[in-house]
Amino acid sequence: MCQECGCSPDTTRKLLDVRRKVLEDNDVWAERNREMLRGYGVLGINLMSSPGSGKTTLIERTIDALRGRCRIGVIEGDLETDRDARRIRQRGVPVRQITTGQACHLDAFMLHEAMHNLPLDRIDLLFVENVGNLVCPAAYDLGTGMNVVLLSTTEGDDKPAKYPLVFRRSELMVITKSDLLQGVDFDPRLAVQEARAVNPLIQVIVLSSRTGEGIGEWIEYIERGAKS
Amino acid sequence: MCQECGCSPDTTRKLLDVRRKVLEDNDVWAERNREMLRGYGVLGINLMSSPGSGKTTLIERTIDALRGRCRIGVIEGDLETDRDARRIRQRGVPVRQITTGQACHLDAFMLHEAMHNLPLDRIDLLFVENVGNLVCPAAYDLGTGMNVVLLSTTEGDDKPAKYPLVFRRSELMVITKSDLLQGVDFDPRLAVQEARAVNPLIQVIVLSSRTGEGIGEWIEYIERGAKS
Repeated sequence: MCQECGCSPDTTRKLLDVRRKVLEDNDVWAERNREMLRGYGVLGINLMSSPGSGKTTLIERTIDALRGRCRIGVIEGDLETDRDARRIRQRGVPVRQITTGQACHLDAFMLHEAMHNLPLDRIDLLFVENVGNLVCPAAYDLGTGMNVVLLSTTEGDDKPAKYPLVFRRSELMVITKSDLLQGVDFDPRLAVQEARAVNPLIQVIVLSSRTGEGIGEWIEYIERGAKS
Repeated sequence: MCQECGCSPDTTRKLLDVRRKVLEDNDVWAERNREMLRGYGVLGINLMSSPGSGKTTLIERTIDALRGRCRIGVIEGDLETDRDARRIRQRGVPVRQITTGQACHLDAFMLHEAMHNLPLDRIDLLFVENVGNLVCPAAYDLGTGMNVVLLSTTEGDDKPAKYPLVFRRSELMVITKSDLLQGVDFDPRLAVQEARAVNPLIQVIVLSSRTGEGIGEWIEYIERGAKS
């Protein structure tokens, strides 16, 4: 309630109630997704980040690196356009695009529907590229086996403290665009320190999809995950 | 409803209903803010972008450029921390921090409360730095006289097509970090073309807060706005 004007937006509480219910429903679908992925022996990886942190490029790079060793499927989330799906399709792997319209995140139900349209029996690894948004996707469990947050060096090393939830919910932080480190004020040690302040167990890989630095470490990490 | 499993998340419609009501309430507060700013003769500028596109740095640069010519106040929106407010305070201008917790955007009511805590009678220009998010802030009119979207060269030139609402709702697109253009795949002409496909009237300024390129054009733009 505004002390000066005396009015308050009374729908806020109602919105919070409904939102809680939506999250509870989401958890039911996330659990179904988890069972479905487990049933097919597929490792799902939910990639979350700001727009333009390099999610699609990292998926492309990973498809190339794992060709012949691991069968990959991809689900792309965007507000509009199927550009990312088209980019991935050129790599010859099965892909589905979820276009969310105004919704700022993927939820477990959207993912569930998309998974039914992928040949899960012929996939080992399912990348889910979430909507580019460092806030909202973190609130929605998708039921994937792994949550990964990307932070590009051009975004600033202060982001884990300012957007803590997504770093808390991820088991791995991938610092992308390491090739641009020279031109920006980004201290990787500080970024790691701040990410571990909100999530002491978070793992970290620093890489550049452009130069290939760190890609080997990333591939090892997901191969370990796929086997476990 | 999922065709395979036969269930549907029935709360989605209810959430949309409540959300519509929230947006209607928001518009009432936005109108109050508009009147309040008009009453004090203050130009409000709502800065929207992804995290790390350079909103705070651009505000700092603008404060320095306009010192002695224009009295500036700032409202900072973040999920957590008051770091941005502390950065701005060092420049000696009045500032208020809004910490939204899990809310992914500023709304007009939050802004209204914060405005009551600023000396609007001694300000010509009020910068409102929205939460770093290219999706949700665009849905909430704040009642400011100007909406500006920042897009950094490191985010990719495809963002206007993929996140259209914020470009549709802004009258100016500021392409930031022009000093990094050499090291990234970003075609400013393509970004402008795509932004104008969703908003034919959008103005464009390309700048670098680091090198100062384009800052003069930006200052002229907001000075024209403040006088109109």
